Amino acid sequence: MPDAPTRRRRSGGRAANTARRGGLQINQMPWRLPRNTDAPTEPLGPDGVQAIHDGAMRILEEIGIEFLNEESLEIFKEAGCKVDGTNVRMGRDWVMEMIGKAPASFEIAARNPAHNITLGDGHILFGNVSSPPNYYDLEIGRKVSGNREQCANLLRLTQYFNCIHFAGGYPVEPVDIHPGVRHLDLLFDKLTLTDKVMHAYSLGKERVEDVMEMVKIANGITEEEFRQKPYMYTNINSTSPLKHDIPMIDGCLRCVRRGQAVVVSPFTLAGAMAPVTMSGAVALSLAEALSAIALFQYVAPGAACVIGTFTSNVDMKSGAPAFGTPEYMRATQMTGQMARFYGLPMRASGVCAANVPDGQAMWETSNSLWSAVQSGTNMVYHAAGWLEGGLIASPEKFIMDCEVIQMIQRYFEPAIVDTSPDSIAVETIAEVGPNGHYFGVQHTQDRYEEAFYSPFLSDWRNFEAWELAGGVWTAERAHSMFKEIIANFEEPPMDIAVREELSAFVERRKSEGGAPTDF
Amino acid sequence: MPDAPTRRRRSGGRAANTARRGGLQINQMPWRLPRNTDAPTEPLGPDGVQAIHDGAMRILEEIGIEFLNEESLEIFKEAGCKVDGTNVRMGRDWVMEMIGKAPASFEIAARNPAHNITLGDGHILFGNVSSPPNYYDLEIGRKVSGNREQCANLLRLTQYFNCIHFAGGYPVEPVDIHPGVRHLDLLFDKLTLTDKVMHAYSLGKERVEDVMEMVKIANGITEEEFRQKPYMYTNINSTSPLKHDIPMIDGCLRCVRRGQAVVVSPFTLAGAMAPVTMSGAVALSLAEALSAIALFQYVAPGAACVIGTFTSNVDMKSGAPAFGTPEYMRATQMTGQMARFYGLPMRASGVCAANVPDGQAMWETSNSLWSAVQSGTNMVYHAAGWLEGGLIASPEKFIMDCEVIQMIQRYFEPAIVDTSPDSIAVETIAEVGPNGHYFGVQHTQDRYEEAFYSPFLSDWRNFEAWELAGGVWTAERAHSMFKEIIANFEEPPMDIAVREELSAFVERRKSEGGAPTDF
Repeated sequence: MPDAPTRRRRSGGRAANTARRGGLQINQMPWRLPRNTDAPTEPLGPDGVQAIHDGAMRILEEIGIEFLNEESLEIFKEAGCKVDGTNVRMGRDWVMEMIGKAPASFEIAARNPAHNITLGDGHILFGNVSSPPNYYDLEIGRKVSGNREQCANLLRLTQYFNCIHFAGGYPVEPVDIHPGVRHLDLLFDKLTLTDKVMHAYSLGKERVEDVMEMVKIANGITEEEFRQKPYMYTNINSTSPLKHDIPMIDGCLRCVRRGQAVVVSPFTLAGAMAPVTMSGAVALSLAEALSAIALFQYVAPGAACVIGTFTSNVDMKSGAPAFGTPEYMRATQMTGQMARFYGLPMRASGVCAANVPDGQAMWETSNSLWSAVQSGTNMVYHAAGWLEGGLIASPEKFIMDCEVIQMIQRYFEPAIVDTSPDSIAVETIAEVGPNGHYFGVQHTQDRYEEAFYSPFLSDWRNFEAWELAGGVWTAERAHSMFKEIIANFEEPPMDIAVREELSAFVERRKSEGGAPTDF
Repeated sequence: MPDAPTRRRRSGGRAANTARRGGLQINQMPWRLPRNTDAPTEPLGPDGVQAIHDGAMRILEEIGIEFLNEESLEIFKEAGCKVDGTNVRMGRDWVMEMIGKAPASFEIAARNPAHNITLGDGHILFGNVSSPPNYYDLEIGRKVSGNREQCANLLRLTQYFNCIHFAGGYPVEPVDIHPGVRHLDLLFDKLTLTDKVMHAYSLGKERVEDVMEMVKIANGITEEEFRQKPYMYTNINSTSPLKHDIPMIDGCLRCVRRGQAVVVSPFTLAGAMAPVTMSGAVALSLAEALSAIALFQYVAPGAACVIGTFTSNVDMKSGAPAFGTPEYMRATQMTGQMARFYGLPMRASGVCAANVPDGQAMWETSNSLWSAVQSGTNMVYHAAGWLEGGLIASPEKFIMDCEVIQMIQRYFEPAIVDTSPDSIAVETIAEVGPNGHYFGVQHTQDRYEEAFYSPFLSDWRNFEAWELAGGVWTAERAHSMFKEIIANFEEPPMDIAVREELSAFVERRKSEGGAPTDF
């Protein structure tokens, strides 16, 4: 299995820019780093921003955050924070001084330099769904535990779609691989099936450090080169309310000390592990995130940090988390205002509560993706493939989401809103007059190929043509496309020696016993 | 048939505020006129606004608009415009002077005063799908010609859902009724099945005037009272490019002369009947709309006018219209900027190209509804029930759309973004501490009932609970809800004498032969 998908590429050397799209040619947009040119939607006035900031600072000063990681407690003590057991209180001046050291934007290199990304600087970038324990597709027709093959297929989609800019965590948890060696097999799969920016889970030092080693091998770089700039990132969640656990902080410290990027995303569900009021949930989320980012900036001034938001609400009838709700959208927008206030790049998500890739899934996901746009989010996690509040990964949903993401990319192309005389085209309007049409005129002929978004999954035919072609609903079309993409997928090129070095590393670390599983 | 749905209400007198929700109690939001508090998304700078304005004015001054309606040609002559055959050119000073007479907002009364609406003044209001010739539901499972019963059921949904603020045109064209009398039977159905703001088609003077008479009867008002303020509206499309046909202008003139409202919505598909460039299509749309609105303001200064946009693009491979595209969104936003420039309330739409109520339908509709929000649209036509580019009405889609519309309404509730100390809740965060949760605390108990959006159609249960309940996808859930709503629907109360007067009017006009059908 580990070697099966590699046969075709053993010969190596095909040009990256054609091979990375695979053998199937669907009409997708080229790779680009879209810039969000819209003014953000800002529900808070200056007083509101100040009130939430003050709330977050009071949480840090008066209540404190629990840091279970002992090393971090020592560092906080050294920095002059008030450490009482695992409780750390920190003054706002110190926090703001530390946060002020963080860059407003930074690059993360991929093993394919064409896939380097910049987080911040007005960009809005998208990543695949991460970490669902379960998988659903239309062929299986039910929820099943994730496995390596499903995970590999979702990684192929991650690579295939140009609108996916970075690889998140495992797009589905491959529970058929022992957790002690899972990260080794999966990073091998991720590094060989994709050439996009890599992620490491902060689940114990062995896992983080193994990923770093494998990323270095895949990039063909020395430790010194690796330390010069981010080649990967980790994403951690706090244990809301008010707590950071041991391995997550440990993983981040290992990353920032070696120049790698960290994303801190508290998961503050209003009404469950955060106040039922959205501004309270946002203030708590900010306090949790800023406490960790302040620590990282103290340890490694200028470290690449992203402030994440994962503030939503529960269904008060059942306690179940809800996503893509009005409250989720407003919390994301408010966090966007605060991220700009702190000068940090921001992460949000593409999420839904729906269990299957249907209408509800798409309106909830559309709500969350548009709130990412409205909030000025730079890094959109889980943007493709997420179902059931993150408990299910679905290839159909992945492909459906990519159509929406592509439309958001296209939405930001300045050509659409060009108002030059050639675009307003009064002369053409005179030429066509009241009795003609615009299909055949030169003005149209010169522009029609690039004039409009061209979908790859949406069916724009009329009902009769659609029915004649089988009357296939969107999710089923996405399923067929999934099978086709996988059948025709070509791995991105990798030097044979590099691949063998990766394989050898995996074998050696497995023989050493992998990572402990008592986390 | 015409009398069948009325039995229950013949006894009359039930309080409107309970009866209008019908017998089935789904957990919907109360009636309200939501205000759009977001700053609009403005892709154009001041130069861009000026360039499009200049383009529209040059079209009016140099190219002219064709008015096939003879009366309007006489009026334009009288006003000093250059009339050459059916071509009318008008100077920008005159156009701007006329447009300046139009109100920035106005009220339209419904027969139930609780359902009066204000167009403009920051409101965003939603109406049902209008005018599809065909119908689709999951029970029928295919596209069929519309009929009166389907139309009546969609009107029941229009009445049932509090988030639908006005009745548009026929939610599906009842082609089983002869076109000469269709408007009589349908207005009877509309006026008895709903008590919301009424619409008249401008398809010949008899149709418009019959609707006016029936609205007067339903409201129990005299002609003099009717002329004091809008009790109804008409919506017209220009025949793009550059043309207004005979009955549409005639109908609008009849409306504005009697104090009723008009909506002018050119249908400029970029690349087909408008330039392939969006700013060109918008400039053409504006010129067409402004030429008519200028006429109406000349005839009836201060007349209630809405500027509509229906600018989208075609699929350049097939020529088929596309909706909810990035280009559609930007055109809507640009038109929003121009509507504010001209000081006119604006209409846009909730639209999609999808043929069935699936994922594509909902991402396209979400795109169009969010662009209505982003553009500051005041009146969202076709907001519930639209499929296949407006060729199909679907009750499932209607109900699915209402969930999205409700979320937009909820999104605008200021409570979500409240940042008072009670909302930021530092004391509660201290009280819960790092080891508790927020489910049981007083702060949550005091607020949980109103804290979050509560869906009526979305299924937020986990996969297992959802599967146990039958594993029903969204469209199927909407179908069941449709059947339930219709089975339990209670008509809004109407005085028996009024109903009989309406019936008598319909019978008399039928006996007179209805309206000519040679339009």
